[in-house]
Amino acid sequence: MSTCSADLAAYLTGAGNATGAANLICGNFDSVSNQFIDTGYAIDSTYLLFSAYLVFAMQLGFAMLCAGSVRAKNTMNIMLTNVLDACAGALFYYLFGFAFAFGTPSNAFIGKQFFGLKKLPETGFDYPFFLYQWAFAIAAAGITSGSIAERTQFVAYLIYSAFLTGFVYPVVSHWFWAADGWAGAARGLNHSVLFKSGVIDFAGSGVVHMVGGVAGLWGALIEGPRIGRFDHVGRSVALRGHSASLVVLGTFLLWFGWYGFNPGSFNIIDKSYGPSGSINGQWSAVGRTAVTTTLAGSVAGLTTLFGKRLQTGHWNVIDVCNGLLGGFAAITSGCSVVDPWAAIICGFVSAWVLIGGNALAAKLKFDDPLEATQLHGGCGAWGIIFTALFAREKYVNQVYPGRDGRPYGLFMGGGGRLLGAHIVAILAIIGWVSITMAPLFFLLHKLGLLRISAEDELAGMDTTRHGGAAYVYNDEDPGKHEGFMLRSAQGKVEPGESTPTQV
Amino acid sequence: MSTCSADLAAYLTGAGNATGAANLICGNFDSVSNQFIDTGYAIDSTYLLFSAYLVFAMQLGFAMLCAGSVRAKNTMNIMLTNVLDACAGALFYYLFGFAFAFGTPSNAFIGKQFFGLKKLPETGFDYPFFLYQWAFAIAAAGITSGSIAERTQFVAYLIYSAFLTGFVYPVVSHWFWAADGWAGAARGLNHSVLFKSGVIDFAGSGVVHMVGGVAGLWGALIEGPRIGRFDHVGRSVALRGHSASLVVLGTFLLWFGWYGFNPGSFNIIDKSYGPSGSINGQWSAVGRTAVTTTLAGSVAGLTTLFGKRLQTGHWNVIDVCNGLLGGFAAITSGCSVVDPWAAIICGFVSAWVLIGGNALAAKLKFDDPLEATQLHGGCGAWGIIFTALFAREKYVNQVYPGRDGRPYGLFMGGGGRLLGAHIVAILAIIGWVSITMAPLFFLLHKLGLLRISAEDELAGMDTTRHGGAAYVYNDEDPGKHEGFMLRSAQGKVEPGESTPTQV
Amino acid sequence: MSTCSADLAAYLTGAGNATGAANLICGNFDSVSNQFIDTGYAIDSTYLLFSAYLVFAMQLGFAMLCAGSVRAKNTMNIMLTNVLDACAGALFYYLFGFAFAFGTPSNAFIGKQFFGLKKLPETGFDYPFFLYQWAFAIAAAGITSGSIAERTQFVAYLIYSAFLTGFVYPVVSHWFWAADGWAGAARGLNHSVLFKSGVIDFAGSGVVHMVGGVAGLWGALIEGPRIGRFDHVGRSVALRGHSASLVVLGTFLLWFGWYGFNPGSFNIIDKSYGPSGSINGQWSAVGRTAVTTTLAGSVAGLTTLFGKRLQTGHWNVIDVCNGLLGGFAAITSGCSVVDPWAAIICGFVSAWVLIGGNALAAKLKFDDPLEATQLHGGCGAWGIIFTALFAREKYVNQVYPGRDGRPYGLFMGGGGRLLGAHIVAILAIIGWVSITMAPLFFLLHKLGLLRISAEDELAGMDTTRHGGAAYVYNDEDPGKHEGFMLRSAQGKVEPGESTPTQV
Repeated sequence: MSTCSADLAAYLTGAGNATGAANLICGNFDSVSNQFIDTGYAIDSTYLLFSAYLVFAMQLGFAMLCAGSVRAKNTMNIMLTNVLDACAGALFYYLFGFAFAFGTPSNAFIGKQFFGLKKLPETGFDYPFFLYQWAFAIAAAGITSGSIAERTQFVAYLIYSAFLTGFVYPVVSHWFWAADGWAGAARGLNHSVLFKSGVIDFAGSGVVHMVGGVAGLWGALIEGPRIGRFDHVGRSVALRGHSASLVVLGTFLLWFGWYGFNPGSFNIIDKSYGPSGSINGQWSAVGRTAVTTTLAGSVAGLTTLFGKRLQTGHWNVIDVCNGLLGGFAAITSGCSVVDPWAAIICGFVSAWVLIGGNALAAKLKFDDPLEATQLHGGCGAWGIIFTALFAREKYVNQVYPGRDGRPYGLFMGGGGRLLGAHIVAILAIIGWVSITMAPLFFLLHKLGLLRISAEDELAGMDTTRHGGAAYVYNDEDPGKHEGFMLRSAQGKVEPGESTPTQV
Repeated sequence: MSTCSADLAAYLTGAGNATGAANLICGNFDSVSNQFIDTGYAIDSTYLLFSAYLVFAMQLGFAMLCAGSVRAKNTMNIMLTNVLDACAGALFYYLFGFAFAFGTPSNAFIGKQFFGLKKLPETGFDYPFFLYQWAFAIAAAGITSGSIAERTQFVAYLIYSAFLTGFVYPVVSHWFWAADGWAGAARGLNHSVLFKSGVIDFAGSGVVHMVGGVAGLWGALIEGPRIGRFDHVGRSVALRGHSASLVVLGTFLLWFGWYGFNPGSFNIIDKSYGPSGSINGQWSAVGRTAVTTTLAGSVAGLTTLFGKRLQTGHWNVIDVCNGLLGGFAAITSGCSVVDPWAAIICGFVSAWVLIGGNALAAKLKFDDPLEATQLHGGCGAWGIIFTALFAREKYVNQVYPGRDGRPYGLFMGGGGRLLGAHIVAILAIIGWVSITMAPLFFLLHKLGLLRISAEDELAGMDTTRHGGAAYVYNDEDPGKHEGFMLRSAQGKVEPGESTPTQV
Repeated sequence: MSTCSADLAAYLTGAGNATGAANLICGNFDSVSNQFIDTGYAIDSTYLLFSAYLVFAMQLGFAMLCAGSVRAKNTMNIMLTNVLDACAGALFYYLFGFAFAFGTPSNAFIGKQFFGLKKLPETGFDYPFFLYQWAFAIAAAGITSGSIAERTQFVAYLIYSAFLTGFVYPVVSHWFWAADGWAGAARGLNHSVLFKSGVIDFAGSGVVHMVGGVAGLWGALIEGPRIGRFDHVGRSVALRGHSASLVVLGTFLLWFGWYGFNPGSFNIIDKSYGPSGSINGQWSAVGRTAVTTTLAGSVAGLTTLFGKRLQTGHWNVIDVCNGLLGGFAAITSGCSVVDPWAAIICGFVSAWVLIGGNALAAKLKFDDPLEATQLHGGCGAWGIIFTALFAREKYVNQVYPGRDGRPYGLFMGGGGRLLGAHIVAILAIIGWVSITMAPLFFLLHKLGLLRISAEDELAGMDTTRHGGAAYVYNDEDPGKHEGFMLRSAQGKVEPGESTPTQV
C-alpha cells in the first residue's frame, strides 16, 4: 500500500497533486483487496458450513447403520446412543473439547484456550470451524458404541462417551491437526517436526477412525462376546441385524456425509495455487479429494463383493456396505495428497484388511457387532500407511505449503521419513487410546457398571431399559384385540408369537 | 464514480490528458465494483439455494417423524399429507402465498404484488428467495397435520391445509418479515415501529412454529382425542407409534434441515460488518447461528432425557427426540442475536416447557399425537420470550442495522421494550390463527367433514381410504399362500393374526 | 491490459514516469481480474460439488424407492444393484465413461480423451465436473434395474449395468452435452448444428431418463412379467411393494437430489447476463430452474392424486410419489429455459402420460415393477417435446449464448425447428439404446443368464442368492426359541407363519 502510493507518487511527479492522485488510486486498490478478503470469508464459510452439515448427516447415517445391524430388541438402545453422541458432544465440545483440541497459543500436547468459545471469532477460528470440528468429534464416539452394542449398560455408555469426546479425542486431534501439536504436518514452520515431516492424516483415518476403533476394541474385549455369538464348540454364529434396509440407508448417508468429511477438511476453498487466474487452486484439490474418496470406497465395495462371494457363495449387500465404509476409512488419511489411481489401490487393499480382520476376529472369538474395530481401526491404520507410500510430492506441497524438502510417499520417490512419522502416529494413537480407555472400561467392568445381565440381554434392552419395543406393526383395534386375546387364550397361542415386535 | 474522476482529474492536472486518465482509471474501479456485486449475487444465491434445499429436507423429516409416531394402520395417510403439503404448497404459494407474504410495495397487513411471481427477479426478490420461503411455508401445515393425525378426514386436510399455507401463514410472515409488515424489526426506517423496536422473530419460532402449533391446538381440540387415548376412568394411555427408527430418522433429518432454517434466514452471507477485510461479517454470524441452534437443541434433548428418566424410569429415545425438536423450535426466534451460552439456557427451559405442556395435556385429556401443540406452540412461545430477554446489543444492531438505540434483551441491559413487542407478537399470532382456523375447523366439524367414523378409526385409514396397508412383510408365493389359507381355515387361525401388517 | 497501459501512458504524458505509472496501475487491475477468476473458480466449484453431492443422494433415493416398491423377499437384491451402480459406475466412469462422454478434442459420435482422468484439471474439465457427471451416469443404470426387478439373475445385472454405464450412456451424453457432440445446443459455433438449433436437453430428460427407461423396456419385455403379475384370465394383479415408508423416503430423497440434478446442470453460477452489477445473471436462472422443477413435480403429483382417485376411489400416496417423479423427469429437459407457468403445464400433462402409460402397460401385460419405462421413458419423452413447445427466447439465448437467431419454443413464436431437432433426438435415443441393449438382453436370455428360475422367484432372491432375508423382527432369545419351536411342532403351526420375514 504505502509502496504503491510512494512508487506511484514518484512516477506521477509533475502532476498537480501527485501524492493525492497516488493515495486515491492506491487507496482504492487497498479497498479492493479488503473486499476480496470479505468475499473469501463468505465463500469459505459457505463451503465449510455446508461441509459441516454433511458431516453431521453422518451421525444420522451411523444411527441407521447401527440400528439395522443390531437385533430389533436393541434398536431403541443403540439409536439413543447415536442421538446422545451429538447432544452431549455439543455441550462438552463447546465447554472444553474444542479448547483442548485447537486452543492456541498452547503446548504440543493439549490446547488451553477457547473454553466455552471465548475469544471467538478469531482469524482461523470462526464459528463455522467450531461446528465442523464438533461434527467430527461426535463421530469417534459413534464408532465405539457400535463395538459394544447389544450388551452394554446405558450408564457405562454415558461415562465413556463423555470421556472420549471431551478429552481422549480432542487431545489426539490437537497432536495432529492443531498448529502447535507435536506431530502434525501443519506444525508451524519455526518448530522442529517429527522426522522433519510431521504426519499427514488429512481428514482423520487415525485421529477419528483409529481412535474410535481402538476404544471399541478395548470395550468389546473387556465385555466379551454377546450371548449366542459363538456356540458351545466355539463356532461363530451370525447374529443377524434386523433390517438390511436400514443398513443400506445408513451406508449411503455415511457416503453422502463423507463428502463433507474429506473434501471439507481443507477448511477453505478460495485459494489459488498459482499463478492467479489459472485453474490451479484449492477448488481443484477439493474436487480431486472427492474423487479419490469415491474411488477408494467404490473399489473396496466391489472387492468385498467378489471376495466374500468366493468365501460364502452369496452376493451380500451388507458385506458390500462394510467394504465401502472400510475403503472410506482408509482413504480419509491421504485423500488430498494422492492421485485417483492410487485411491484404487487403497480401496482394494482395505477390502482385504477388513476381510482378514473379520476372519481373525472370528478365530479369536472377538465380537464387535458393527465390525467397528476391524473396519475403523484396521482400515484406518492401513490408510495411514498407504498415505506414507503414495503421497505425491506436488500435492503434499500444495496442501501443506511452506516447508522446503518436505518428504512424501515412499513409492513416489519421497523417501522413508513420512513412513517413519506415520508408524509413530499409529503407535501413538494405539498407545494413548489404550492407556486412557482400557483402564476406564476395566474400572466400569469391576464396578459392575459395564455389562447388562444375561436376562436383560436375552430379553433385549429396549423393553427392559428404554420403555418398550422399537416397532409395533400390529395395530389391533381394542375390540378386535380382545377377541384376539380370547382366541389366543383358548388356543394356547400366546400373543408374543404372532406379534414378534412386542417381545 | 464521478467524484473519483473529478478528484483524480484535478490531481493529475498537468498530464497530457488528465480527464482521460481519470476516466480510464475510475471506470475500471467502477467495473470492479460491479463485479463484486455479481460475485456477491453468486455467493449469496448459492448459500440461499442450498439452505432452501435443507429446509425442504425438513419436509422429509416431518414425513418420517409423523409416520413413525402414528400406528402402522395410518402410515399411508399421514405420509400423504406430508407429500401434499409440499405439492399443494408449491402451487398455492406460487399463485398467491408469496405475494401475500412479501409483495412490495404494499400495506402493513398483507402483500399485494408478485402474484404468480410476476416481476421477478427484482433486487431482494429473486427466485432463490421464493424457493426458500416456499420451503418455510410448507413447514407450518406439516406441524398442524401432526396434531390431528389418525382421526381426520382427508378432505378436511385438503381444505385446512390450503387455507393455512395460502393465506393464514403468509399474512403472519408479512407482519413480521416483510419490509412493510406492521410488526417486524426490519420495518423500513422511515416507519414508526412497534415499541420503537419491532419483533425479532429471526427464523420463525412464532411465524412458523406457533402458527402451526396454534392451528393444531384448535383442530385437536375440536376433534377430540383418538379412541382409546384415555381409558374409561380418564387415565392417559400411550398409543405408541409404530416405528422408533422412523422417529429417529425424522428427527435427525429435521436437525439437518434446521441448518438451512436458522443459519439460512440471513438470506445473504457476503456482507462485512466492518472494517472490510476483518473476520467480522455476516459469515461469522451465520456460523454463530448454527452453533446456537445446535446447543439449544442438544441441551433440550439432554434435559429431557434426564427429566423423563426421573419421571418414568426409562431412558427413552423418543422423548429425547421430542426434546431436541422443542429446543430447536425455541431457539429459532433468537438464534442470530444471542450468545452460545444463552442458547444453553434456552434449550434447558424449553425441555421443561415441553414436559410441563405434556403433563398439562394429559391432565386436560387433550390428544395431540405428535405433541405438536406443546412442542411447536409452547416451545415456540418460550423462544419469543427468551429472545426478548437475552438478545445482545451488538448482535441486534448487526443483524437489524440502521436504527439507532434499538432495544435489546431485558437481561442484557436493553430494557423492556423488546419484551413488550414480543408479548404483543405472541398475542397477535394466537389471536390471528384462532380467529381464522378455529371457525374453519368448527365449520368442518358441523358439516361432518372433520372426523372419520369410529369404524374407520379402529380399522385404520390406510385400508379404508388409501388403498391398503403401508407394509407387507410376508411375501407368500401364490402356491404357498393357498396352502396357508387352507391350514388357517382348518386350524381356526385367521391370516390376520400372523400377518399383522395386513390388518 | 496492454491497451490499458498504452492508453494510460499516453494520457499521463508529462508525468515523471508515465509508463511506470501506467504499468503499475494497469498491472494492479490485471491482478484484480485474475483474482476474480480465482474467486469464480472457488464459487463455481462449491456450487458444482454440492450439486454433485445432491445428485449422489438420488442414488440413495433410488435404493429406498426400489426397496419399498418390491416385495420383502427381494429387498436385499434390489438394494445391492443400487449400491453397485454407484461402485462399479465410479470405476468404469473413471476408466473410460467420462472419456467417451466428454473427452475433447474428439469427433461428433464419441469422446476419446481423458481416460483415467488423464490431463485433468483443464479449464472446463476439473474434478468437480467429473464427480458431477459420474453422479449422473449412475442414475441411468438405476432406472433400468427397476424395470427388471424381482426376476433377474445377478450376473445379468452385472453385465448390462457395466455396458450401459460404461458405453451406451456416455455416448448419448456425448451427442447432446459435449461441445463437439453432433446434436447438442452447445455445439461449437463454427460447426453446423441440427436444424440450425441443436437439442436443448438441459439436464437429461432424454440423455438420462429416456436412456434408462428404454433400456428397461427391452429388459422387461424380453424377461416377461413376474409370476402372478397377471392372473390366468389375464387380469392385472398388483404385487404390492413391501413398505410405503421406504417409497416415500425414496421419493423425497429423489426430490431433494433433483435440486442438484436440474439447477446444478448450469455447472457455473458466477456469471452475469449483463449489465454487470445487476440482478440478471446465472444465479437467477439457477434459482428459476429450481422453481420450475418444483412446480412441475408438484403439479404432476397433485394431478395424479385426483386422477387416480377418480380411477380407483383411493387417495394413494404411492401414486402421488410416482406422479411427482414423472413430473420431475419431464421438466428435466426444459427446466432452465421455460417460465414457471409453463412448468405447471409440463407437470399436468406428464401426470396423464404416466397414467396412460400405466393403463397401456396393463393392457399389453407389460410388467415393470417400478413403472420405470412409463415414468422415465414416457414422461422423459414428453419433456423433450414440451421444451420444443415452451422454451422462451430470452432464456434460450442466455443459457445457450453466442448463436444469433437460435430457434425457441413453437408456442412461444420460435418456429418449428427446435421441435424438429427434438423429434430427431427422441428417435436417436430410442434407436441407439435399442440397437445396443435389446441384443444384449436377448443374448443373455438365450444363454439362460437373464431370468431366475420359477422356484427362486417364488422363494425370493434374498434367501436363494443373497444370504438371507432383509428383515428379522423376531429376536427370540435362544431359550425362548426352542420352546417356540417345540410348541409349533406340537400345534402344527410352522414357524414360517408367524415369522413372515424368514420366508
